[in-house]
Amino acid sequence: MQRGWFITFEGGEGTGKTTQILKLAAHLESLGRTVVLTREPGGTPVAEAARAVLLDPALEPMGLSELFLLEAARHDHVEQVIRPGLAKGEVILCDRYADSSTVYQGMVRGIGVERVEELNELATGGLDPDLTIVFDLDPEAGVGRARSRNAEGDGSESRLDDEPAEFHRSVRDGFLRLAVRYPHRVRVIDATGGPDTVFDRLLAVLPEELR
Amino acid sequence: MQRGWFITFEGGEGTGKTTQILKLAAHLESLGRTVVLTREPGGTPVAEAARAVLLDPALEPMGLSELFLLEAARHDHVEQVIRPGLAKGEVILCDRYADSSTVYQGMVRGIGVERVEELNELATGGLDPDLTIVFDLDPEAGVGRARSRNAEGDGSESRLDDEPAEFHRSVRDGFLRLAVRYPHRVRVIDATGGPDTVFDRLLAVLPEELR
Repeated sequence: MQRGWFITFEGGEGTGKTTQILKLAAHLESLGRTVVLTREPGGTPVAEAARAVLLDPALEPMGLSELFLLEAARHDHVEQVIRPGLAKGEVILCDRYADSSTVYQGMVRGIGVERVEELNELATGGLDPDLTIVFDLDPEAGVGRARSRNAEGDGSESRLDDEPAEFHRSVRDGFLRLAVRYPHRVRVIDATGGPDTVFDRLLAVLPEELR
Repeated sequence: MQRGWFITFEGGEGTGKTTQILKLAAHLESLGRTVVLTREPGGTPVAEAARAVLLDPALEPMGLSELFLLEAARHDHVEQVIRPGLAKGEVILCDRYADSSTVYQGMVRGIGVERVEELNELATGGLDPDLTIVFDLDPEAGVGRARSRNAEGDGSESRLDDEPAEFHRSVRDGFLRLAVRYPHRVRVIDATGGPDTVFDRLLAVLPEELR
């Protein structure tokens, strides 16, 4: 049996994450791999229910409640989807993971990196990705992309889009700091340019057997 | 201004908690106190949304996800309802609180008391009740009471009612251990007998100014 891979995708809004994940899934399937596309928060009925609470525009969870809801979703997702998939040799492509909490809740919302990473560790049982791709883009460009997409989309990320520019700069800084903190697994990809250009950069940082 | 009081009520199913809380609220109002009746999980829109996830019969959150959902609800409830109420001199009567997580998730579900109390501490910002009343009843009697009530009720606690007898014995033991652990704030009340008999026992352990 082939070994499973756990690859996560991070970055601010409008960095082209979703497009790149779909391209990578098609590429890996063409190599004969079984690919699981999933996302955080979500991926299981319990996690999707927690996601609905997080994204309900009528509710405004406090920062720490938001974090607990994310960890509730994360634990379920890890145990029901990610671990079983890896055990079967699948490639798990996950749109956001624990690093998002470290950056958004820990750094930007001010709960503290150490506290968030403790809860991440508890929720994931210590399961780190094999590889984390951070799509890096100037926040001005990224938010513009996200706004034009959400104008016709499901609006699920509109809360973040409405944040001030300072917020998006902090998010970008946060992910760059994360790459410095975890150099063995985090790779930063320049997200400027067309989808094919960005995808070439992505392929270049993949492990040999997935290229 | 009068000082606020934070009183929580714990115990297994069918111990008559709700009846006693309502009697106490009426009594305190007759003394001229402003009483807030609330419950866990719940008490705010965010917490009630988390409660709905916890009680959805179609979902079966894993133990740790359940705990995170409870802490999400708890944090919101503490910050939005309990702290502000205490600051205004209100008497907060809360049906279940952090001790329930210590007993149900920490002891009975096996997550561990230390871990649960760390998360409780984080969620509550260290806010302990002034007084915690544990209604103690032989589990056989308690579950019988709960079943006959739920047959015509909202069924919201039916999950717990369906647990085996061993579970209910562990819950009872857990609350009794808690009383030993926190003797300065936890009072165990014999819940056998009629509502007035039990209420007399409850009054007897209240602080002087609330009797």
